[in-house]
Amino acid sequence: MPVNLAPLDASTLLPVPGLRIGTTMAGVRKANRRDLVVFALDEGAQVAGVFTQNRFCAAPVQVCQAHLAAGAGIRALVVNTGNANAGTGAPGLAAAQQTCAALAAIAGCVPAQVLPFSTGVIMEPLPVDRITAALPAAWADLQAAGAGHWGDAAQGIMTTDTVPKAASRQVQIDGHTVTVTGISKGAGMIRPNMATMLGFMATDAVLAPGLLQGLVREAADRSFNRITIDGDTSTNDSFVLMATGRAGHAPITTLDSPAGRALAEAVIAVAQTLAQAIVRDGEGATKFITVQIDGGRNTDECKLVAYAIAHSPLVKTAFFASDPNLGRILAAVGYAGIPDLDQALIDLHLDDVLVAQAGGRHPGYQEAEGQRVMKQAEITVRVHLHRGEASATVWTCDLSHDYVSINADYRS
Amino acid sequence: MPVNLAPLDASTLLPVPGLRIGTTMAGVRKANRRDLVVFALDEGAQVAGVFTQNRFCAAPVQVCQAHLAAGAGIRALVVNTGNANAGTGAPGLAAAQQTCAALAAIAGCVPAQVLPFSTGVIMEPLPVDRITAALPAAWADLQAAGAGHWGDAAQGIMTTDTVPKAASRQVQIDGHTVTVTGISKGAGMIRPNMATMLGFMATDAVLAPGLLQGLVREAADRSFNRITIDGDTSTNDSFVLMATGRAGHAPITTLDSPAGRALAEAVIAVAQTLAQAIVRDGEGATKFITVQIDGGRNTDECKLVAYAIAHSPLVKTAFFASDPNLGRILAAVGYAGIPDLDQALIDLHLDDVLVAQAGGRHPGYQEAEGQRVMKQAEITVRVHLHRGEASATVWTCDLSHDYVSINADYRS
Repeated sequence: MPVNLAPLDASTLLPVPGLRIGTTMAGVRKANRRDLVVFALDEGAQVAGVFTQNRFCAAPVQVCQAHLAAGAGIRALVVNTGNANAGTGAPGLAAAQQTCAALAAIAGCVPAQVLPFSTGVIMEPLPVDRITAALPAAWADLQAAGAGHWGDAAQGIMTTDTVPKAASRQVQIDGHTVTVTGISKGAGMIRPNMATMLGFMATDAVLAPGLLQGLVREAADRSFNRITIDGDTSTNDSFVLMATGRAGHAPITTLDSPAGRALAEAVIAVAQTLAQAIVRDGEGATKFITVQIDGGRNTDECKLVAYAIAHSPLVKTAFFASDPNLGRILAAVGYAGIPDLDQALIDLHLDDVLVAQAGGRHPGYQEAEGQRVMKQAEITVRVHLHRGEASATVWTCDLSHDYVSINADYRS
Repeated sequence: MPVNLAPLDASTLLPVPGLRIGTTMAGVRKANRRDLVVFALDEGAQVAGVFTQNRFCAAPVQVCQAHLAAGAGIRALVVNTGNANAGTGAPGLAAAQQTCAALAAIAGCVPAQVLPFSTGVIMEPLPVDRITAALPAAWADLQAAGAGHWGDAAQGIMTTDTVPKAASRQVQIDGHTVTVTGISKGAGMIRPNMATMLGFMATDAVLAPGLLQGLVREAADRSFNRITIDGDTSTNDSFVLMATGRAGHAPITTLDSPAGRALAEAVIAVAQTLAQAIVRDGEGATKFITVQIDGGRNTDECKLVAYAIAHSPLVKTAFFASDPNLGRILAAVGYAGIPDLDQALIDLHLDDVLVAQAGGRHPGYQEAEGQRVMKQAEITVRVHLHRGEASATVWTCDLSHDYVSINADYRS
């Protein structure tokens, strides 16, 4: 049961002019499910991405990075679920390249203009023949009103997700309406960098060359790189932003301009919705937890503390149990890795309840108050370090029996 | 159900001349359970310890460090379970000091000659009056054949442990029999540094002044600092080694001598047995996993990789399910944090089964073989990085439904 995450209403997803989407059932791992998605970009679109920092990155991630670096102009993307094509060595790389070549032949471009993505089980050979055999059907779907196929695409990239994840937003730039739409999928093996596992966003905004990479990086750092479910960094995490340049306004030449900030805020807002949706639908999640650290000397140490709390199995099981066993949070603060941390300065709030002050239980704290907050579906943990002015926020979920069940049974 | 850990046979635990032990039921948290342990050392004994690096270290840890630094000669130790006296601020410190003062009055020494230890729930006030009221009974027990009370002490420090943990070993030094006996308790919130939560060891070996701290550090680094259950570093972890100097041999003046190595190996062997027992009795553990990393450039990077595997909830749930979803191990290797790791060099063995070679699934690998090993209660994961000559080994357990249950229900 996702936490406060409504079923997707695909009619709310706005087409992005210059981008078409097609999906089909390729039978990659299971029959009768949408598991193959293709995107086609009109000529002149820009594409930028950020990818997992896992050194065991999957074959498609390696191919994506090579094709983006080649600079031939990306015209198509292909995504399969059911198999991650990771830990597959040289045959895995060949399979990803073969997929690109097959789509390029259909799309009328060269393989270096295609980006491949895979998600699913690791270290099993990619059934590339099933994918290439299904590409014509996906392409045909794309040609039939593909601009409206965002909802199908959100479904077509799911693994253990229980709900498809997508969001749209519009913003006015220079008198023109600019659209931002995106989809994402989780739901385990989520941790920065990256956390997505997969995110695809598109906008019809017009950007001068060279701006898109900075925008996708900023959006990731404020969304997908601020979520964690189980602390495992996937081999396949990829977040791609496509800009078709069809909105008709004057090109944005810097992200620091009013138009640049308007676009960036819209992109970040959609990315945060998509990232938080991954946490809300985290494997076994029953609670959505915001961890906010204030008073650090710098953002990095605030993130250290936030992730120590957000990754602690003891903290996460306490949330699952609605048990205000809040000393576990203080313990996580203590081992986060700030060598000169002074515990006598630490304050801890649970929503509006002051639990600990100056490193010890606050005399006015009543466990009934902690219990009241812990029973909520959404909880904010606030820790003040009283060392400086920096802050950081991350989002996570609890650790439940269902997390164990899902990951113990994932392949069965 | 602990993994291959027999019920404790207290008759196998050898007394250490110069040390007496007493226990009682103080009702710290629960009635009718042994929850208070005292140790008394004859004059001239040496004591050294290593403690949690958690910056939120508990009040008793702070007092221990101060009293050891004072150098007055430790004469008594007092341990309670049921309450960790952590996250308790200034009142917690006062409570730990009050406990020392009460025991000092009974033992006929000064408070700075007493070391206090606490384990149990965090951030609740220590019921110090119950402890001080029960100290006379514990002391009376110590005076009645206390040298033989190791088994009772192992019981008296348990929290969520299901089995008391203790071990003894004897070694010949210079024609004299030297005894090493110890106890430990886990069983969650286990991670270096330290991992114990609590370990107490004693020997009657004779050591020149200044050697004991190096010995306790070496023993910790090869035992308690090589285990992990859930990655949480406790606020209270303490490992103490007492040397009564009663064995009659000539004093050991360096650990690099034959006598020094003989003693060190005996101490390390007992410490490893105690540390592994903590993992075997890890919260919810159904499997005992040895993670061995070879071919690293240095020990630190081998440990990074070993802990990434040992901490991964995805890896641990796969072990619980006996599911050879071994790509999760490769993914953990990839995100361990070696920036220039070359995945194309990595080999992965599961016991004797070669699963992955040169970064990809080995062509000869049969899933049935992986399945066979995964079903065992004890499994060794071996990763070869092919970057250098260094190695490191850590021990961990799987992540089961019972882990969630135990930690969701711990305070109830």
